[in-house]
Amino acid sequence: MYEGVVQDLIDELGRLPGVGPKSAQRIAFHLLQADPADVRRFAEVLLEVKEKVKFCSVCFNVAEDDQCRICRDPRRDPSVLCVVEEYKDVVAIERTREFRGRYHVLGGAISPIDGIGPDQLHIKELLSRLGDDAVTEVILATDPNLEGEATATYLTRMLSPLGLRITRLASGLPVGGDLEYADEVTLGRAFVGRQAAT
Amino acid sequence: MYEGVVQDLIDELGRLPGVGPKSAQRIAFHLLQADPADVRRFAEVLLEVKEKVKFCSVCFNVAEDDQCRICRDPRRDPSVLCVVEEYKDVVAIERTREFRGRYHVLGGAISPIDGIGPDQLHIKELLSRLGDDAVTEVILATDPNLEGEATATYLTRMLSPLGLRITRLASGLPVGGDLEYADEVTLGRAFVGRQAAT
Repeated sequence: MYEGVVQDLIDELGRLPGVGPKSAQRIAFHLLQADPADVRRFAEVLLEVKEKVKFCSVCFNVAEDDQCRICRDPRRDPSVLCVVEEYKDVVAIERTREFRGRYHVLGGAISPIDGIGPDQLHIKELLSRLGDDAVTEVILATDPNLEGEATATYLTRMLSPLGLRITRLASGLPVGGDLEYADEVTLGRAFVGRQAAT
Repeated sequence: MYEGVVQDLIDELGRLPGVGPKSAQRIAFHLLQADPADVRRFAEVLLEVKEKVKFCSVCFNVAEDDQCRICRDPRRDPSVLCVVEEYKDVVAIERTREFRGRYHVLGGAISPIDGIGPDQLHIKELLSRLGDDAVTEVILATDPNLEGEATATYLTRMLSPLGLRITRLASGLPVGGDLEYADEVTLGRAFVGRQAAT
């Protein structure tokens, strides 16, 4: 329907997550009319990201050097290791400013349906870190969904012989939400995990 | 929050129409994990679009040559000219396969609020085409909104001295819709424009 390269652009945009055919068209038309310098900068950032962004050799977090900012930071507590699925989970936890330890990014969660087993994740590297390092606590901060829970269960079984403290993030009602809108599982967990009022 | 170039990518993505901060993050993380060859191809298409895509010297439609595919096509009827706001309107009308004439793309609609007056649109070029060409009918196919209607009214006044047939697209109920959900203006127009049942 569209002139060759415009259709190519719409196709490329349509491959991005959350961008449907209509949005892809709208974005393409926007870019057609945009300042060429702006579009060139966008294209350059895309190329740069794939060139510059590496993964930390220690924790597999996103890094611009061999090690990520957090692994290089001597003020971070080396005794607590927070295991997450993805880089974006690191960013989400950093935003809370509640955690001063280090991370280990698995690169996903165990999901037999998607063909992702323990071998596709950075679990071997986690085990060798626990052998070398002065880690005393491992926080399993996988997503609170089926795959995340399966991964945490698997890791708990793998790590318990090491004699470390292994913890999970608390489940319960989201702060600022309405009790009546919480799903049954969340509300159930909030009951099970109830704490003494202070 | 993010490593430098990742944040740059999120910022660039966030500038696209309809891409909020959350979507920009999701797309950026997708690109971080995508095959480098795929991302390179995306970047190249972006650069190519700005390099290759020109605007037709006759009708201002998108073109890869001096003239667009439609202006070059000798089978298109030169006596009917359809005036639209944007390239995407050409594509939408082509999709109907109901129109075999040619187009004139204004490049927008008159909108004093956005500082767009008749001089910012390709109206002068439309008038000179009507002087030269064998055009007998001009279809004003601007958007059925405030700016589109204002533009059509302006063009009707400009073109009526030329003695051509000037038409507008029919207003009425959208096919496949429910009468009760039509807004009052649309329903009102459907009454005014009612036709003999056959």
